[in-house]
This record gives sequence, structure tokens and C-alpha cells, in this order.
Amino acid sequence: MFPKTLIWNDENLAILDQRKIPWEVSYCICKNYSEVADAIEKLKIRGAPAIGIAAAYGVALAALEGVDKIIPAIERLSHTRPTAVNLFWSLKRMEVAFYASLEKDLPRALLNEAHLILDEDIRINRAIGEKGAEILPETCTILTHCNAGALATGGHGTALGIIRTAKEMKKSIRVFADETRPVLQGARLTVWELMQDGIDVTLICDSMAGSLMKEGKIDAVIVGADRVTSRGDVANKIGTYQLAILSQYHSIPFYVAAPVSSFDWSLASGDDIPIERREASEVLCLGGDTSLPDNYAVYNPAFDVTPSELISAIVTEKGLIMAPVSVNIDSFKKKL
Amino acid sequence: MFPKTLIWNDENLAILDQRKIPWEVSYCICKNYSEVADAIEKLKIRGAPAIGIAAAYGVALAALEGVDKIIPAIERLSHTRPTAVNLFWSLKRMEVAFYASLEKDLPRALLNEAHLILDEDIRINRAIGEKGAEILPETCTILTHCNAGALATGGHGTALGIIRTAKEMKKSIRVFADETRPVLQGARLTVWELMQDGIDVTLICDSMAGSLMKEGKIDAVIVGADRVTSRGDVANKIGTYQLAILSQYHSIPFYVAAPVSSFDWSLASGDDIPIERREASEVLCLGGDTSLPDNYAVYNPAFDVTPSELISAIVTEKGLIMAPVSVNIDSFKKKL
Repeated sequence: MFPKTLIWNDENLAILDQRKIPWEVSYCICKNYSEVADAIEKLKIRGAPAIGIAAAYGVALAALEGVDKIIPAIERLSHTRPTAVNLFWSLKRMEVAFYASLEKDLPRALLNEAHLILDEDIRINRAIGEKGAEILPETCTILTHCNAGALATGGHGTALGIIRTAKEMKKSIRVFADETRPVLQGARLTVWELMQDGIDVTLICDSMAGSLMKEGKIDAVIVGADRVTSRGDVANKIGTYQLAILSQYHSIPFYVAAPVSSFDWSLASGDDIPIERREASEVLCLGGDTSLPDNYAVYNPAFDVTPSELISAIVTEKGLIMAPVSVNIDSFKKKL
Repeated sequence: MFPKTLIWNDENLAILDQRKIPWEVSYCICKNYSEVADAIEKLKIRGAPAIGIAAAYGVALAALEGVDKIIPAIERLSHTRPTAVNLFWSLKRMEVAFYASLEKDLPRALLNEAHLILDEDIRINRAIGEKGAEILPETCTILTHCNAGALATGGHGTALGIIRTAKEMKKSIRVFADETRPVLQGARLTVWELMQDGIDVTLICDSMAGSLMKEGKIDAVIVGADRVTSRGDVANKIGTYQLAILSQYHSIPFYVAAPVSSFDWSLASGDDIPIERREASEVLCLGGDTSLPDNYAVYNPAFDVTPSELISAIVTEKGLIMAPVSVNIDSFKKKL
């Protein structure tokens, strides 16, 4: 059985420590909202849907600490990471639940809301999986970037959810996984996650994607999303944008898998999405004690923005937004 | 003073051990051709011109061992790495020198030929530097990939030679260096090499190039070459091909710096260039004792091929081959 990303244990939240995978499967126990915030900042848990869920449980933990901790908890958790919108969406739901509840019911009400967000996420990912898997050919080699899998969500995954469901449908699926420097979510998480489920996966460096496409080895690219704007521009892990250009150049479909909670209808252009810049040490630390000199200048944006023009379809739990995404997203929004 | 890539010490060849840079500047002493071959295979020395020079000295060492060692040395050295054509060009020169020499003069004749190849390479790189630097604007931010620097050659470098000469011309040059996974020649060698010369350089991961271009931060891309075909297709470090696509997409000039010895006139299409596949451990070993699980499937081609259509100009010591490269290369060849 695939390990759960988050487990609620009555009075604490156990978070699968993704910094230790694939070397060790262990949980980090968060007893209060500060520990949840710290786990998100330090990437012990990552992935847009997963950090939204973790933050919801962080607010539930704050309610157990005391009613006066709830707003500070929402404030603290909202400053952990800037790009993925699910975090703010989830905290907004918790805030609404807070104001809607009678004070004596608060801890239970907020915990129930967090449970609901988690349960919904798994159902949503299964729906994304079904809608996405339907459009894949019977035999298909997919390139993916970063980890938009069970580990990035409550379970099943978004991009990898499509791959999992396609396999359940008996489609013959092979995967190439970009290692996704600097944090190696592809190498550490995606390869490990797919191997647990017996899915054929091969690791490549990020620089090899174009060459693989040229050789005709890739039938489709599927990635997740940290934020989708109202015209369908997509912020996702750094490297996604160039994969989309490479896909277009080689006439390979480029799919984004994202729950509706990843859509930020308040922003039109992707240029308005705040892009997190992370510390140089992520690039300089190569593993263990091996590090490049700390006087190196480093540029380390964690995300980039792919304009909707480069996207063949966005796969959501409510259906597909086909290209031209910037046009079709309007009718999609109206049906929500 | 920048350390020399290779130093001849009367009866042995000292090779700057590039596996240890930037942590340690030390030389590996090769006393015979087998040790030179081993150093090339293990990437202690790398870069198309540099391995050609090292191989020439390997043959000179064989001549010191005995006349019967010369042909076995050429045979052994020609099997070290398959893609860079300078290796075969250099060994052919040594073979010609061998057959042209009287037996008693052999060691000296072959050593002189190796010295000549080294000295010529430095002069050639300075000529490439001048011809390339002339076409750069006065203020220019350049993206480079892998290491086509002094470390990859007898000195000065090809791609980095252009950058060095531009700086000598008082142009204001800033560099972004792709880290160049899996072996990190960009992070370990290019950043270190440019810092030694006081050139402004910033390290990025390979996945960040497209995003930087979109932000308008890159004015030109300059890379080296391991082999150029008669229609101008270029084999170079894996990741070069996708950089060329990204450059075209963003209307950024994409320059290849290569001595004429990197041209293989016997091949038309880049599809005919043998591409070295290297071991999985290069991708799996992250640094020190940290390694990904060895049951991971890995695809690790060391090079890719950029078709001439994506190249703005090839900069050689004999002048520039401007786009359309596949057309202009014919008149270039005729003038050689």
C-alpha cells in the first residue's frame, strides 16, 4: 500500500517527510501549526494540493491550541510559500468555517473541514485521472516533470493520477521522469512513487527532454500546476515552461493536470503570479556533505509560468479545457 | 594565472584532474598511454580539443615506451570516447607523423607533433575568441552550457574564449552558466573558470534557461562542439539541442564555437554521429556518499545533436559560418 502523504492522529498531524524519500519512509509529527508551517517551508511536504491540505490541518491544530490561535495560524501558514494558490484557497475555506462555527464547536468544525478538504482532494484526483486517461492512446510514453503524484496531493495524484488511472484502464503506459533540479522531486519522488505501483519509469536529467522528443520517444507530456490564471497561464515547477516550448516544437501534446482549487480567477496573466525564489544552497548542495563553493552566484526561481498558448489541454475534475485554452476557459468557468 | 589543462614534464603528462575542480586543483600524472586513456574515459580530462591534445601526448608517451607501442596506443586511445571528432583527428595526425618519421627520431618527432597540436590549439582558440567577440554587442549577457573553456582546450577556450576575448576588448559581459547535469561541467568548471578570471557569472539549473530567456535576460547563447558535420549539424553536450530550440523560440542568437578540427567532413547529417551513452551512476550519484537507489532505470546520453537550422553562426578560427549554416558551410569548406 502506498504510504499516505498526511495522517491525522487525533491530536497531531503526521506528515510523510519527503526530504527523506527515497532513502527512508518516515513521518514528521506536527503538534501545532508552527510545526506545520515549518514543514511546508522546509519542503518536508510539497505539491500544491498537499500543502493546502497540510495548512488546513495546521489551522485545525491551532483551534485545539485555543480559539485565539486560529487567525495567527492562518496568517503564519499563508506566509510559508507564495506561488501555489491551493494554500490560500484552503486557508480561506478554513477561515470561512471558523466564522461560520459556534465557538464551542470550533475544534471539531475546523478538523472536519480539514478532513473534508483531504477527502475531496482524493476524489478530485481520481476524477482528474479518469478524464485525463481517456484522452491518452492505448500505448503511450509520457514525460513528466517534478512530482504531481500521490505525494503532492492527498492521494492518487494529478499528473501521476492520470498515469495511474490509465494503467488501471489497462493502457500500456511508460514514463520518463525529469529529475527536476535543484530539489530532485522527479528523481527522488516521482520515480520512487511510480516504482511502488509497478509503473515502468525511467529517470532522465532535465537537459535530456528535448533529445528524447526528437528521437520520437515521447507521446505526451503531463505536468501538474501550482496556479492557473483566468486566461489559463500556468505556474508550475521551474522547467515546465521550457518543456512546453519543446513539446510545441516537436508537435507533442502538452497537458496540465490541476484541480479547480489551483485556479486563481483573480489573475489574468501569468506575469502576475508571484514566483518564489529560493536559497542558493538548494543548487549548491549536491548531496550529503558535497557542496559547491558558497561564493558562487546562483539564480534559483522555484517556478516558472507557461502561457496558455503552449498548453494542449488543462485536465480538471470538472472536465478538460482544450486548446485554445485562453478562449475555452471562459465557458469552463461559467459552468462551474 | 589560470592553471594549465595539460603540462608535459619531459617523460610524463600532467593532466589537471577536472573531477576534483572546484574543490581541489591537482594534477594526475600519466606515465604511459594507458594512463592517458584511463584519464580520458574517467573524465579527468574532457572537452573535445583537450582530449585530442591528451591523446596526442598519449601517443608520444607510447613512442617513449617503444616503437611497437605506437599503433596499439592509437588503437586504445581511439576507443576512449566516441563522439568528439578531435580525438580521431589528433590521432590521425600522430599516425601520419609516425609514418613520416625515421625510426630513430620517432619519440622526438611524435612529441613535437603533440606540442604543435597543443600550441596550435591555443592560437586557434584566440582566433575563435576574436572572431566571436567582434559580433557581440558592447553590453551582453551570455548563456553557456557545459564547459567549452580553457579547461576543455589547450587554453583560452572556444565558447568561453569568445567571452574572455570580449572582456579583453572591454565589452561588458555577464554570463549565466547552466549547471549541466549529470556531470556538472557548468557548475563545477565553467563557473569556477570564469570566476578565476573575474568574469561575472551566475549559476542556474538546466531547467531555468527557458525562463531566463522569457524574462529577456539573455542576449546570446554560446556553446562549444564535439563534432560538426558537413551540413553544419552539431553534436555537443546533452542539453545543447533544447537550448537551441529555446533560443529560436525567443529570437536569441545561438552561436557554436568550434575549431576546424571539430568538423567531420565525412558525415552529412548529425543523425550519423555516434552518441555516447554513459553509465547510470553518473545520474544516480548526487555527491559524496549520496546516491539514488541503484534499481532505478536511467537514460544517460552524454551528447545530443543540434541541426544546423537552429544555429545562428558557427564561429571558427577561419571565420564565421553564418545562417543558413547548411548553405554557407560549402563556401567555407572551399576556402579552407
